[in-house]
Amino acid sequence: MKIEDRIPRDRRNDYSKEMAGKRREFLTDKTGETLEYTGQYSIDPAVLPGNIENFIGIVQMPVGIAGPVQINGEYAQGQFYVPLATTEGTLVASYSRGMRVINECGGVTTTVVEQFMQRAPAFLFDNARQARDFGEWVSANFTQISEVAESTSSIAKLQHIEQWSVAKMRYLRFNYTTGDAAGQNMVSKATLAASEWIKQHSPIPCDYLLSGNMDTDKKHSQLNMIHSRGRRVIAEIVLKKDVLRKIMHVDSRMMAKAAVLSNVGARIAGAAYNGPHSANGIASLFIATGQDEANVVESHAGHLSHELLENDDLYLSVTLPSLIVATYGGGTGLPTQKECLNLLGCYGKGKANKFAEIVAATVLAGDISLACAVIAGHWVSSHDRLGRNRP
Amino acid sequence: MKIEDRIPRDRRNDYSKEMAGKRREFLTDKTGETLEYTGQYSIDPAVLPGNIENFIGIVQMPVGIAGPVQINGEYAQGQFYVPLATTEGTLVASYSRGMRVINECGGVTTTVVEQFMQRAPAFLFDNARQARDFGEWVSANFTQISEVAESTSSIAKLQHIEQWSVAKMRYLRFNYTTGDAAGQNMVSKATLAASEWIKQHSPIPCDYLLSGNMDTDKKHSQLNMIHSRGRRVIAEIVLKKDVLRKIMHVDSRMMAKAAVLSNVGARIAGAAYNGPHSANGIASLFIATGQDEANVVESHAGHLSHELLENDDLYLSVTLPSLIVATYGGGTGLPTQKECLNLLGCYGKGKANKFAEIVAATVLAGDISLACAVIAGHWVSSHDRLGRNRP
Amino acid sequence: MKIEDRIPRDRRNDYSKEMAGKRREFLTDKTGETLEYTGQYSIDPAVLPGNIENFIGIVQMPVGIAGPVQINGEYAQGQFYVPLATTEGTLVASYSRGMRVINECGGVTTTVVEQFMQRAPAFLFDNARQARDFGEWVSANFTQISEVAESTSSIAKLQHIEQWSVAKMRYLRFNYTTGDAAGQNMVSKATLAASEWIKQHSPIPCDYLLSGNMDTDKKHSQLNMIHSRGRRVIAEIVLKKDVLRKIMHVDSRMMAKAAVLSNVGARIAGAAYNGPHSANGIASLFIATGQDEANVVESHAGHLSHELLENDDLYLSVTLPSLIVATYGGGTGLPTQKECLNLLGCYGKGKANKFAEIVAATVLAGDISLACAVIAGHWVSSHDRLGRNRP
Amino acid sequence: MKIEDRIPRDRRNDYSKEMAGKRREFLTDKTGETLEYTGQYSIDPAVLPGNIENFIGIVQMPVGIAGPVQINGEYAQGQFYVPLATTEGTLVASYSRGMRVINECGGVTTTVVEQFMQRAPAFLFDNARQARDFGEWVSANFTQISEVAESTSSIAKLQHIEQWSVAKMRYLRFNYTTGDAAGQNMVSKATLAASEWIKQHSPIPCDYLLSGNMDTDKKHSQLNMIHSRGRRVIAEIVLKKDVLRKIMHVDSRMMAKAAVLSNVGARIAGAAYNGPHSANGIASLFIATGQDEANVVESHAGHLSHELLENDDLYLSVTLPSLIVATYGGGTGLPTQKECLNLLGCYGKGKANKFAEIVAATVLAGDISLACAVIAGHWVSSHDRLGRNRP
Repeated sequence: MKIEDRIPRDRRNDYSKEMAGKRREFLTDKTGETLEYTGQYSIDPAVLPGNIENFIGIVQMPVGIAGPVQINGEYAQGQFYVPLATTEGTLVASYSRGMRVINECGGVTTTVVEQFMQRAPAFLFDNARQARDFGEWVSANFTQISEVAESTSSIAKLQHIEQWSVAKMRYLRFNYTTGDAAGQNMVSKATLAASEWIKQHSPIPCDYLLSGNMDTDKKHSQLNMIHSRGRRVIAEIVLKKDVLRKIMHVDSRMMAKAAVLSNVGARIAGAAYNGPHSANGIASLFIATGQDEANVVESHAGHLSHELLENDDLYLSVTLPSLIVATYGGGTGLPTQKECLNLLGCYGKGKANKFAEIVAATVLAGDISLACAVIAGHWVSSHDRLGRNRP
Repeated sequence: MKIEDRIPRDRRNDYSKEMAGKRREFLTDKTGETLEYTGQYSIDPAVLPGNIENFIGIVQMPVGIAGPVQINGEYAQGQFYVPLATTEGTLVASYSRGMRVINECGGVTTTVVEQFMQRAPAFLFDNARQARDFGEWVSANFTQISEVAESTSSIAKLQHIEQWSVAKMRYLRFNYTTGDAAGQNMVSKATLAASEWIKQHSPIPCDYLLSGNMDTDKKHSQLNMIHSRGRRVIAEIVLKKDVLRKIMHVDSRMMAKAAVLSNVGARIAGAAYNGPHSANGIASLFIATGQDEANVVESHAGHLSHELLENDDLYLSVTLPSLIVATYGGGTGLPTQKECLNLLGCYGKGKANKFAEIVAATVLAGDISLACAVIAGHWVSSHDRLGRNRP
Repeated sequence: MKIEDRIPRDRRNDYSKEMAGKRREFLTDKTGETLEYTGQYSIDPAVLPGNIENFIGIVQMPVGIAGPVQINGEYAQGQFYVPLATTEGTLVASYSRGMRVINECGGVTTTVVEQFMQRAPAFLFDNARQARDFGEWVSANFTQISEVAESTSSIAKLQHIEQWSVAKMRYLRFNYTTGDAAGQNMVSKATLAASEWIKQHSPIPCDYLLSGNMDTDKKHSQLNMIHSRGRRVIAEIVLKKDVLRKIMHVDSRMMAKAAVLSNVGARIAGAAYNGPHSANGIASLFIATGQDEANVVESHAGHLSHELLENDDLYLSVTLPSLIVATYGGGTGLPTQKECLNLLGCYGKGKANKFAEIVAATVLAGDISLACAVIAGHWVSSHDRLGRNRP
Repeated sequence: MKIEDRIPRDRRNDYSKEMAGKRREFLTDKTGETLEYTGQYSIDPAVLPGNIENFIGIVQMPVGIAGPVQINGEYAQGQFYVPLATTEGTLVASYSRGMRVINECGGVTTTVVEQFMQRAPAFLFDNARQARDFGEWVSANFTQISEVAESTSSIAKLQHIEQWSVAKMRYLRFNYTTGDAAGQNMVSKATLAASEWIKQHSPIPCDYLLSGNMDTDKKHSQLNMIHSRGRRVIAEIVLKKDVLRKIMHVDSRMMAKAAVLSNVGARIAGAAYNGPHSANGIASLFIATGQDEANVVESHAGHLSHELLENDDLYLSVTLPSLIVATYGGGTGLPTQKECLNLLGCYGKGKANKFAEIVAATVLAGDISLACAVIAGHWVSSHDRLGRNRP
């Protein structure tokens, strides 16, 4: 029996407290669970359509504040208090500790390199030659394809189309800029229009599937490591050896050494990230600010770089090639999520680059903190030993 | 200025509404944002210690109900109403639609294959020969190492230790079963004890780092595709062609064909998952039930298999090799999250296998739904054409 | 003691039989090995400079002939006898068997999709913002950079430059067409000139390394799966079920089923190729025809696609995205290698596409043969069973 | 028309000069190519059966000598002159140059860590539960399975069986030691016997395919990076900064810096090797010594590690996790190949570990040389700059 069967037909799209209550009652009948707390919420359900269906209530996820963290970005400038929604103890404290180190070292420098969002239809032909020739036709007709795609949106701008021939398929990967929206929906719409136009005008008959999984939507991929999906953003810092020693009780040379061990392990394992834990900070900040939580899987990929400088300070940077964020639309407008974005001065249009910089800075803070924790607690070697490693 | 500077020293670990309010006031002073809704919550903050620090309030994430879905598992048996916390519109409706197809086809069969949780220290030596010989010593002393590791926990049981030599390092990867907990913390504690014992008793002097990134904790990796981290769980169904046509307006042969296109794209892209969107269902169900949200990045990896049967029905299955779930501890005990787990009959000890089965069934439902949506809307070929593809 | 110490200084670059003999004598003195056969060769050593240093003689590698194979290419058209240099028994016979199947099915259709050869310098800056801005400057100055690069060669044409920002580095990947040469050396020279020009003219001071390993020269990479290095070539066939049964004693449905098993295994393992053994045919044909043998590692990557058609015939194709071949230069001009190329009508300029088509056809033949061998010998199921697989 | 049609039926397996000549005549008739040089060879064709079919003659591949190189191995001890068969100019000279550096630094230390060769059948069931339960049965019956497998060979010893459940398949990966043979054939035979026994005795009915591509035979894979296939061998050295400066005109710090750039590029690209060019040395040494050339694709994978020591000397090591070599069988017994193996003291039983050490040392030499060449020629920065990189 479906929950809707208990709800009058004309109230199925009703988000009112009354109808949510009826749905909970139904579930209580079925399972015995009263859903007492889930049924308590202060937000106006009128904001929910577009965000959820079959609404029954609210999950209450605790939020802690990390920071402040000094960010010297092009968009984010100053001290930021970062809201993290998590149920994992020590996470907020750990990120805060990393931020303290960052502040004592003068702050994080952040750089947004580029932005793209993709939809990648697969076109199917009778044979490989058709697929190849079709690809050339697509390139030759980029301008028209672009016009059709962009006619569906005031925001999405088609930048370029990547193409791959495999067997008798031709995979196209439409790359758009999407302003301050994550943009998956608008690029789907644009690419569907473009694909329909292509199908109608292609001199070679073809079928297509709107996604052939080279997008690669809602999944990590090596392709995402290579070509940016969402924003490619970089956060850098030079960690002063004295600060590391004072706050973290860690020697900068040991930290460099530990980074090498982690790099090797990550490469052998084929890991999407080579630092300690990009996913923790991203997931927590995403939940707090109404991001599409599934995007964590794409966003957590990246590269942690280190360089021990001549004076034993340690350059550290995190590169997130596929950070997918939005500052309006989706869940960003829900009351608590909007508040958390406002806390960062990041709600609304024109704020996505700023928010991306804050996410990258947060990831860097978390990696500094956890790396040091592992080293300080468990890396029980003496400094003397370091120079004496000999085969 | 840190938020704690406003809070009296003896109240810093205070989760009371009063102190949370003071923290919000501080933030309002700093940012102008009032955090009105974030400050409204019904749960007793006394439950929060261990889940969050620097607590300021609650993010309200809407929950919708998908299903019911018929699951024919070894642990999950019957019809389940699945709570999904999300802000992405259509997600709940889409999963529900997939569940309807599942039900009409007799339900999902689910199988938990195995369970492991890892911590992977890297041991460093003077040269490769020492590292190799050390590895042999570790193997020879497994029983003692196991005793030391297991002495730290009543739950974690050391199953085996994987080993890798790279350069002059020896990476060990401790594989434990951890009952109904996700177990990252208990395996850290156990492996730290074991590593300390190893360091003290090893005939070859060594240093170690508690994690050399071969765990691979909080990140996707090919290693996780190969060796299970968390639970390896499989959900299977035979989709009846008539049901597909009736509910989804999709031909089973087209669905098979589309699956091939997606498989190829996923392989070329090096994607962690070859189906449409495992991450959506996992993320939403994880938030609703108090799972560690960062684990989505590991859990979303997997393999969607299909086989067109003689009668044109379609076998479909999802294999999740590294699904990390818990039914107690962490965020599972928070009031709303506990309610959502109770809705599934999954709160507490002895429930993790059941919950894992439900997650896998949910992922399968979502993939059925989205795959069909893409095909029905956009795959505009005629059935006649299918047999005529010729190079 | 080095071998050159025995050779008069003015004869060190001497490839004469006399000097090769002296080198062998030196080695005999040192090791006792007479190198009797290695010292016997019929080719004129005058052809060797540019191919080898410290020349001591010849390895005699046996050559067998596979085929003929019917190729319906755009460049290779007709029946080809394929020389394979190998020491692995059954290899030639197996490829021949596959070619027999191909012929009975009307031949292989081959398609060269595109050609690129890369050199990928890494530019290093003080910070990420410089690296990003530098990248924009490179794009804006593509025409001039292209002129400088192309001034070094009459053949290499710069098509486009891919760019990646990671930390404070900017990786550029110069993509050239290189005619009928493999082209690694000419693109190095061109890219060195371009990089020097860039370094001198860049408004942002930089250092660079001529290769930052994103080429990715002489190694397999996922990047090579995605972006063609060498030629992307596809070989296709529809295998008639009757031919499969008659020659191979294999049912086409079983072959499709086996391909699925192999696809899944390859994906879980993270394999560079999902068919049986592209490397065997490529390595053997490369040795016979004087290709740079190390290029096998890049060339063997690819995708084997299959599709069971309505009439139970089986579409099969191999896509090699990074097949690196040459028909002049390198080892192609050595007497026996040139003869083997001539056998295929592939020596000299204007022949590389033809040769690439023959390589792809050969790989397809080998995969057909081995796949059938595995199935016929070891896949001991009855056809009845196939439709009854149910969860 | 097949070449055999010209040969009398009873002479088809004839390797005599006469019959090889008849085959060449046939080809000349067909193609006009005389195959003059290919038809000249000094080896006795009586040695060829088992190595080639349809024999027409010999490819003459030039051999140069690199070295000597000082190896301080457990099996290879002393100075070795390394035969490299290649047509790529500068390759021999470059490896020699690297060996000179090695010698001045006291030699390479080599370590063979372990050896395995695999065959990985895929077993197919009706559903995932059967596949799982079957796996448990296999584990419980390891002893008997092992006896059956080992009964087929006097050399192959079954060490362990890895297992994976995906969908309704169970992939088994039999890991054997195979003495001084590469062992692919003996493990196939052993695993076929074991699989047949399993199929007959399994309480759960099953079909199987002898290879489900998780071997992963004749192809690179991430699995091969993780689990050794062939031998895992490590070559280490501490490069003295003075030697680097004197011979290579390279600063050890720059070399460390360049290694980092290359590591990052390799990781982003998803490369099988992160050093300059393992494949060159391996391919050349493999051809010279009668190794199965296709194994280069598996053998070239690996990890180049570096560490700048306190005194600015540079620790460098290469780890080859899946180096597949043989010192008897296959092509090792052919006259010239055997001579080249003898040159290294590596022909026959009990020599494979020694030979593996020499290969690894050779790879390290080549990487030292090429890395330095790239740096010295093109890395035009001043040393002063190194400490001043700041974001």
